Amino acid sequence: MFFASDNCGPAHPAVMQAVSDANTGYHPSYGDDAVMAEVRSLIRNQFEAPEAAVYLVATGTAANALALSVLAQPWQTIFCTPLSHIQRDECHAPEFFTGGAKLSLVGEADKMTPDQLAAGIEDWVYGDVHVSQRGPVALTQVTEMGHVYSLNELNALTSLAKTYRLPVYLDGARFSNAIAALGCTPAEMTWRAGIDALSFGGTKNGCMGVEAVIFFDPKHAWEFELRRKRAAHLFSKHRYLSAQMLGYLKDNLWRETAAHANAAAARLTAGLREVPGATLLNDPQANMIFATLPRAVHQRLHDAGAVYGLHGTLKGDDPQEAISMRLVCDWSITDELIDRFIDIAKV
Amino acid sequence: MFFASDNCGPAHPAVMQAVSDANTGYHPSYGDDAVMAEVRSLIRNQFEAPEAAVYLVATGTAANALALSVLAQPWQTIFCTPLSHIQRDECHAPEFFTGGAKLSLVGEADKMTPDQLAAGIEDWVYGDVHVSQRGPVALTQVTEMGHVYSLNELNALTSLAKTYRLPVYLDGARFSNAIAALGCTPAEMTWRAGIDALSFGGTKNGCMGVEAVIFFDPKHAWEFELRRKRAAHLFSKHRYLSAQMLGYLKDNLWRETAAHANAAAARLTAGLREVPGATLLNDPQANMIFATLPRAVHQRLHDAGAVYGLHGTLKGDDPQEAISMRLVCDWSITDELIDRFIDIAKV
Amino acid sequence: MFFASDNCGPAHPAVMQAVSDANTGYHPSYGDDAVMAEVRSLIRNQFEAPEAAVYLVATGTAANALALSVLAQPWQTIFCTPLSHIQRDECHAPEFFTGGAKLSLVGEADKMTPDQLAAGIEDWVYGDVHVSQRGPVALTQVTEMGHVYSLNELNALTSLAKTYRLPVYLDGARFSNAIAALGCTPAEMTWRAGIDALSFGGTKNGCMGVEAVIFFDPKHAWEFELRRKRAAHLFSKHRYLSAQMLGYLKDNLWRETAAHANAAAARLTAGLREVPGATLLNDPQANMIFATLPRAVHQRLHDAGAVYGLHGTLKGDDPQEAISMRLVCDWSITDELIDRFIDIAKV
Amino acid sequence: MFFASDNCGPAHPAVMQAVSDANTGYHPSYGDDAVMAEVRSLIRNQFEAPEAAVYLVATGTAANALALSVLAQPWQTIFCTPLSHIQRDECHAPEFFTGGAKLSLVGEADKMTPDQLAAGIEDWVYGDVHVSQRGPVALTQVTEMGHVYSLNELNALTSLAKTYRLPVYLDGARFSNAIAALGCTPAEMTWRAGIDALSFGGTKNGCMGVEAVIFFDPKHAWEFELRRKRAAHLFSKHRYLSAQMLGYLKDNLWRETAAHANAAAARLTAGLREVPGATLLNDPQANMIFATLPRAVHQRLHDAGAVYGLHGTLKGDDPQEAISMRLVCDWSITDELIDRFIDIAKV
Repeated sequence: MFFASDNCGPAHPAVMQAVSDANTGYHPSYGDDAVMAEVRSLIRNQFEAPEAAVYLVATGTAANALALSVLAQPWQTIFCTPLSHIQRDECHAPEFFTGGAKLSLVGEADKMTPDQLAAGIEDWVYGDVHVSQRGPVALTQVTEMGHVYSLNELNALTSLAKTYRLPVYLDGARFSNAIAALGCTPAEMTWRAGIDALSFGGTKNGCMGVEAVIFFDPKHAWEFELRRKRAAHLFSKHRYLSAQMLGYLKDNLWRETAAHANAAAARLTAGLREVPGATLLNDPQANMIFATLPRAVHQRLHDAGAVYGLHGTLKGDDPQEAISMRLVCDWSITDELIDRFIDIAKV
Repeated sequence: MFFASDNCGPAHPAVMQAVSDANTGYHPSYGDDAVMAEVRSLIRNQFEAPEAAVYLVATGTAANALALSVLAQPWQTIFCTPLSHIQRDECHAPEFFTGGAKLSLVGEADKMTPDQLAAGIEDWVYGDVHVSQRGPVALTQVTEMGHVYSLNELNALTSLAKTYRLPVYLDGARFSNAIAALGCTPAEMTWRAGIDALSFGGTKNGCMGVEAVIFFDPKHAWEFELRRKRAAHLFSKHRYLSAQMLGYLKDNLWRETAAHANAAAARLTAGLREVPGATLLNDPQANMIFATLPRAVHQRLHDAGAVYGLHGTLKGDDPQEAISMRLVCDWSITDELIDRFIDIAKV
Repeated sequence: MFFASDNCGPAHPAVMQAVSDANTGYHPSYGDDAVMAEVRSLIRNQFEAPEAAVYLVATGTAANALALSVLAQPWQTIFCTPLSHIQRDECHAPEFFTGGAKLSLVGEADKMTPDQLAAGIEDWVYGDVHVSQRGPVALTQVTEMGHVYSLNELNALTSLAKTYRLPVYLDGARFSNAIAALGCTPAEMTWRAGIDALSFGGTKNGCMGVEAVIFFDPKHAWEFELRRKRAAHLFSKHRYLSAQMLGYLKDNLWRETAAHANAAAARLTAGLREVPGATLLNDPQANMIFATLPRAVHQRLHDAGAVYGLHGTLKGDDPQEAISMRLVCDWSITDELIDRFIDIAKV
Repeated sequence: MFFASDNCGPAHPAVMQAVSDANTGYHPSYGDDAVMAEVRSLIRNQFEAPEAAVYLVATGTAANALALSVLAQPWQTIFCTPLSHIQRDECHAPEFFTGGAKLSLVGEADKMTPDQLAAGIEDWVYGDVHVSQRGPVALTQVTEMGHVYSLNELNALTSLAKTYRLPVYLDGARFSNAIAALGCTPAEMTWRAGIDALSFGGTKNGCMGVEAVIFFDPKHAWEFELRRKRAAHLFSKHRYLSAQMLGYLKDNLWRETAAHANAAAARLTAGLREVPGATLLNDPQANMIFATLPRAVHQRLHDAGAVYGLHGTLKGDDPQEAISMRLVCDWSITDELIDRFIDIAKV
């Protein structure tokens, strides 16, 4: 019963098989491997973007920080929400990679609205040498609170950004879960919705550690390559990144694992709704649930070996006190585990 | 017949098995996995350094640049040779990670002598705010030209550095090949020889992509952890780095593969000495050979499918013109391939 | 009738005389001039801080960014208000000089309270490698909205910072106006109130361009000197910075000019209170006034040649619409100009 | 008898007068002062460059580092001589401002030849992501050893740079002395000779502290303005920079003071040639002399109060040992002082 994070589960057997398949003979290094050529082609096809520049890195933070460093000058500000991963969870990687760009916080939570974005942009006067210069808008899909922007919401935000001539980046660490939730195509959720660049996450959804960075305008390609090498994120034995991504893309594995994770979260959500004293804090649209349970229920789950994000302490006098938690389902969660979790919670 | 680089070969089956073994169930993320605890313990044992801070990253450039950024202030200079990897092959990663440290080039080639190092240090006046401040000495073992510092040579350089109170870093991308060449212990080649920090390379010697960074003084631990995360080199599913290193360390695999690679290079060297027109450019002590062959011999090898680093062009009128090359043997090279290479060269 | 900024007025004749006096013969360069020794001694005396490290730079942004870069690591966050100069007016100089530190915004305006500061600090979990590490607290005195922290307020904030072991920096671009407002000693408003480092501004109060940076703990001295030179803020003909500061310090000129500026603002405030339709937006404690006037009054002042910060447009249909403005008095403003301004406003 | 540096002398009375003249009334801040408009116009006229972007900063290091940061990407290398100010005397300001660019050292001394430059450029393979990318060429005129590139020499170097599409920057801290030495126009020594950007130094030749940065292609203007502000080098009371430069430009003061300094150095050189035991180490073309004198002569000069750069120690047994020195003449040196110096040396 492990719901702590989709960073803690195993890699999918098909991904491991692809890695194993690539482990023969000699391959050109530093991204010139034939597997990467295949990956590039597959991603361009799946995104209907034959010109896209496609690269692989091993961590989501690298994908975000490198991509943003291409889009943002050091004196520009990146518009993001106060709960975004780049603001809360990357130990200043965006500031480091951009050479000192500022993150301007838009809205109050994990999603921003066009009005909030407009206010954030207008907060920095255009053309004033003293202030932050307006830079890229960074969205996250699925958000850090498990929400999914609709295509209409994305379009409204990117349209606004375009009126200010600002590029839009999408942190797609859970891109696949969003696709599964919306039932749309990758193109619809990205360039057709005004996204200029994105990360396409593999790590959280069945890989060991690989994220694609995609720029729909290939003019950014060479600068990205230089920045990737300079940041020590160009792998010499690059085939092992390529192979993971190949296994992830082939036979639409990435869609299948994401659909499974979302379904697992839906089952878990449905179960939680029947747990006495449980309260949902978000409307789980993908694979993340934020909820509260009474302390006594947490204690019971804890004693049974359940592991998940607890935002509070089990110690306390009041067994009925509501304590919040985060539950994340990855591709490997089974119905049995979910049902067992709910059963223990309900007792 | 692939001798281009030890970055192009496959991973060792035992390493892949360890990765496969780790691919079950849930593991704490970001380096808190139990496999990492085992790796840390093994490395401390092998280096006879029970207090050492031990970390894993995925690339050699990350290991070098992160470690040096802990040892060097932005206004300090790093003393290294003009052929060092950090100077020639890392696209300014050291400058980026340190925030602008300068590399001062010592000597003329891949090894430095104490006299050259002293001259390099003295070139920057102590305590003058206008100039580069003296910083760490960075050595490479095995060097980029396939040479190995003897323990005496290492001790002489580190003793000199100590008189200036400068820390010494060792780029150990091919650390294992040096150990195999010298027949000494890791402790003898590192802290007993005055090395303060090093990278212990796995990638070139049988892993997919993993390097350990070792600080013998654990006071550097927390800063390194922050820098690693900030540079996006902290893996969420860290177990896959740990598992590679575990497979590499267990049963002394790393010594065995390095010994094999060195022996292969020795066999290749011996063969080359009998090729008419061949000239050795270095005295191959580990797994790298620099030599020249007549153009016609290169052409013959090329036609037979041999791949290696050619520093010149096959095109040209004079079939006897000497053209230089780099040959690298990794753990997976077989005697048959070596003999076939020599046979073709000799014909 | 020029109230736009204390950056637009002339330098005081006594400052110019000191510069002229220093313009004879040869002086050691780069801060080794005898005038600087005198300045250092005077500042140490005035601050009752015989060990303080004292330096001069030419701009307030340099003083802030250099001092903060000594106090903050790149992975730390600086706690400041959303209206602080370092956040709003320095085009990322703090981010640049610190190598990527983040500014965490505390409170909603130009002053922070201990509760707000505590919330800001607690927002970043201690010891979590993923998040911003807690760094210095940066206060401004006089604030950007013309307010002055009382000694009690300062002590409460610095006491809180000390419980978290965080250093406290004071942006003293208008330090002298605050001293004039509070009637306390420099020591009382700085190290006795828990301030670790500060800028002591000269530019806005009668100099051409000079700010002192003062660290009460001299351990920061050498790093500051290196950072100052590296940032190109070490003047070769340093005597011209020293001389300005000498003229500013001698005979307590700095107190006299600040007292004059504050008195001018008080006179202007009193006058505004009698202008029909005028509304004070702040409680002017030093030399800055934020207020609104009806559009028609602005137009009248504008036509008469008054210059000041207008936060809106003169164009508009409603002559009674309240439009806000900033008025700043420097040392050179005369009562005649103030009275004329009020007379025109009142008509 | 002060020949230590042109950084130690006073400012010219005409410069001081211009500053005094500007010290009246209110001026727009941050470079919008009317004096700056006049300065910009004068420089464009003198350089016959009506489109040039012209800015002022207070230090030579700021001029160099800011200009180079506009011309060089962080992953590019700047080609300069091993004795250049940016390499030896700026405490990594170029590395800091560029975000980690590398300085590649060309030649062995203070001047580079086209062959040496070509070798330096070719040393970094074009288009290889692992290595330094080729960036701007940085020349110094007058060089740090007192030499002057002829127009032919400049043209040969810039022509070579152009074949590689590399921009050329000129460190003109002693630009005026070079103009005086060559007797050419500013345009001839800059854009007509292939220079893309330069610093035009005022500090060493009669100002308190001001250098112009000139880009002949105005496309760099806005980026420079942002970088200048971000680096805290935009003066609020900018008029005091403008006024210095105005005084320096008016009536060709800058040519007159430079001609005087060069003439003084020529007189001093002629005198030295007659001092027994003296040896000239350079061929003084501008205002700097490198020479040796016997220890006993140094001692005599020292006892008489002469101050200059001594590269060795007065202590020693051999009174005839040759000890080298640097002598610099600024605009304020008088013939009397020179003659006295020579007289004492000759005795």
